[in-house]
Amino acid sequence: MKLKNPLDMHLHLRDNQMLELIAPLSARDFCAAVIMPNLIPPLCNLEDLKAYKMRILKACKDENFTPLMTLFFKNYDEKFLYSAKDEIFGIKLYPAGITTNSNGGVSSFDIEYLKPTLEAMSDLNIPLLVHGETNDFVMDRESNFAKIYEKLAKHFPRLKIVMEHITTKTLCELLKDYENLYATITLHHLIITLDDVIGGKMNPHLFCKPIAKRYEDKEALCELAFSGYEKVMFGSDSAPHPKDTKECCGCAAGVFSAPVILPVLAELFKQNSSEENLQKFLSDNTCKIYDLKFKEDKILTLEEKEWQVPNVYEDKYNQVVPYMAGEILKFQLKH
Amino acid sequence: MKLKNPLDMHLHLRDNQMLELIAPLSARDFCAAVIMPNLIPPLCNLEDLKAYKMRILKACKDENFTPLMTLFFKNYDEKFLYSAKDEIFGIKLYPAGITTNSNGGVSSFDIEYLKPTLEAMSDLNIPLLVHGETNDFVMDRESNFAKIYEKLAKHFPRLKIVMEHITTKTLCELLKDYENLYATITLHHLIITLDDVIGGKMNPHLFCKPIAKRYEDKEALCELAFSGYEKVMFGSDSAPHPKDTKECCGCAAGVFSAPVILPVLAELFKQNSSEENLQKFLSDNTCKIYDLKFKEDKILTLEEKEWQVPNVYEDKYNQVVPYMAGEILKFQLKH
Repeated sequence: MKLKNPLDMHLHLRDNQMLELIAPLSARDFCAAVIMPNLIPPLCNLEDLKAYKMRILKACKDENFTPLMTLFFKNYDEKFLYSAKDEIFGIKLYPAGITTNSNGGVSSFDIEYLKPTLEAMSDLNIPLLVHGETNDFVMDRESNFAKIYEKLAKHFPRLKIVMEHITTKTLCELLKDYENLYATITLHHLIITLDDVIGGKMNPHLFCKPIAKRYEDKEALCELAFSGYEKVMFGSDSAPHPKDTKECCGCAAGVFSAPVILPVLAELFKQNSSEENLQKFLSDNTCKIYDLKFKEDKILTLEEKEWQVPNVYEDKYNQVVPYMAGEILKFQLKH
Repeated sequence: MKLKNPLDMHLHLRDNQMLELIAPLSARDFCAAVIMPNLIPPLCNLEDLKAYKMRILKACKDENFTPLMTLFFKNYDEKFLYSAKDEIFGIKLYPAGITTNSNGGVSSFDIEYLKPTLEAMSDLNIPLLVHGETNDFVMDRESNFAKIYEKLAKHFPRLKIVMEHITTKTLCELLKDYENLYATITLHHLIITLDDVIGGKMNPHLFCKPIAKRYEDKEALCELAFSGYEKVMFGSDSAPHPKDTKECCGCAAGVFSAPVILPVLAELFKQNSSEENLQKFLSDNTCKIYDLKFKEDKILTLEEKEWQVPNVYEDKYNQVVPYMAGEILKFQLKH
């Protein structure tokens, strides 16, 4: 199976030693990735953003890999956005306190409050990437955010709005109602439900935000991905945390899927007789949505050859448990 | 605040060193407790049951505390049940594989299959205590079991059926529809929802089966408990697991509430201006339902005096993290 220019449209690369440990895994398998800005402090200016991009490129060494940088949403003025537009891919909006390092996020979705920034982004064709959850009951947070997506989509019809890492049937349906709404879907939300997180023994390595939902939600996500639906893009939301902050009393949210994405997607799409749509989900849809082009194509070949996922990725500073740790996968990249 | 003969109608005391570590905590605060039979192997004969009872009494030393023993449900013949009736308080039914050490549980709820045992239990006035969950999606398991409770209640009208550790509004309502249905409610399900388990950071020490549900479910449980509703009894489901089997990759289910039950209940009922109903919830309802009498009354006094819950209860074999570890409680037992 050949894949051309695979894109990860939602990736957490962290910083410092963790960045150095994990960035090469994404750089090896992807042509480019949208890099999330929720560092401590979050990326809110170009100087920090450019410096972070340099650290990422350094960590990825000689791989043909483009980090597509994002700013952390706050109200920016048009002059700043104009100066930023060639440096950034989009701006990521977090509701305040909703997930890892999001305390500085948005606390009001009042249109008048958001209007100057979102109008300027519309004018400059800067996409808005959104972590869409309210602070309601955990199973309702995403579907209750639908009304906010609708409000944004209606008031800013020229703004590209990406509903990030969607997990509910509600948002799968909403996607079809507004031309300017798009979505990313992770690998793990195509596979797990809440049953995998807390239905048997509790599994902290599958604990993420948004939390995995019901079987009917998973089926709706799979239908979009496997059919190659044109407004849906792959975004892993791969989000490593050190093992001791996962297997503990207050476990951090995030699934570290980066090391296994392409092999598992290949197996999944094959099982569902949708191999021909994997290229759309992983790259073609995205290239059309954003009119993306790459100087040099990155072509990867996946072969059916078993390998075992390591139990842990580690250096002398960090230990990180990957998604599907210890499992036997059927596909691997041919090097 | 004085409490007379507090009863814990659902308690896991485990065995060996764990039993020795934790049993004195329940024996100190309660007059009697219904002891769950899901040991490895489960308690299915009188010899094992009597030996376990002796180990419990030994672990409780000189406390005025009565372990009310239960057998693990399987099809027993009438002759055996007749010989057992004075040794046991009830029989606990687990659907196969639904929780800790329940693999030998019931895999069919066919009435004809269960009839001989349940008829004999009806004749001998042996209560049936039920862990009521199907193997459906984790949030639906208990409410989907309602139809099985209904079937049992209709077919065996003389059988006392206790819906153990109920967590849903559905079962709160069902309780009122059948005269022979009763329920126990835990401490933690009066306080937490799924948000406390996985809504912020993930908390393995609040992971239990049945899992905590929605706010409206918790409210329905609180209404029954705080009103002193006569068919509801306190049952802690206190279920200790060693710390390293909670803070790990496959976390075991159970909240270890035994050390804090009376102080937390006192505070909770006071907050809700229901102090006068705590005695009903903790003892009077149960004594009426089962016509229980005690040779010597156990009177406990709770005083408003702050103390901090230990972070861990431990001996040289085990470390167990209690519910509300490290928190400051307002009430304590006067010794």
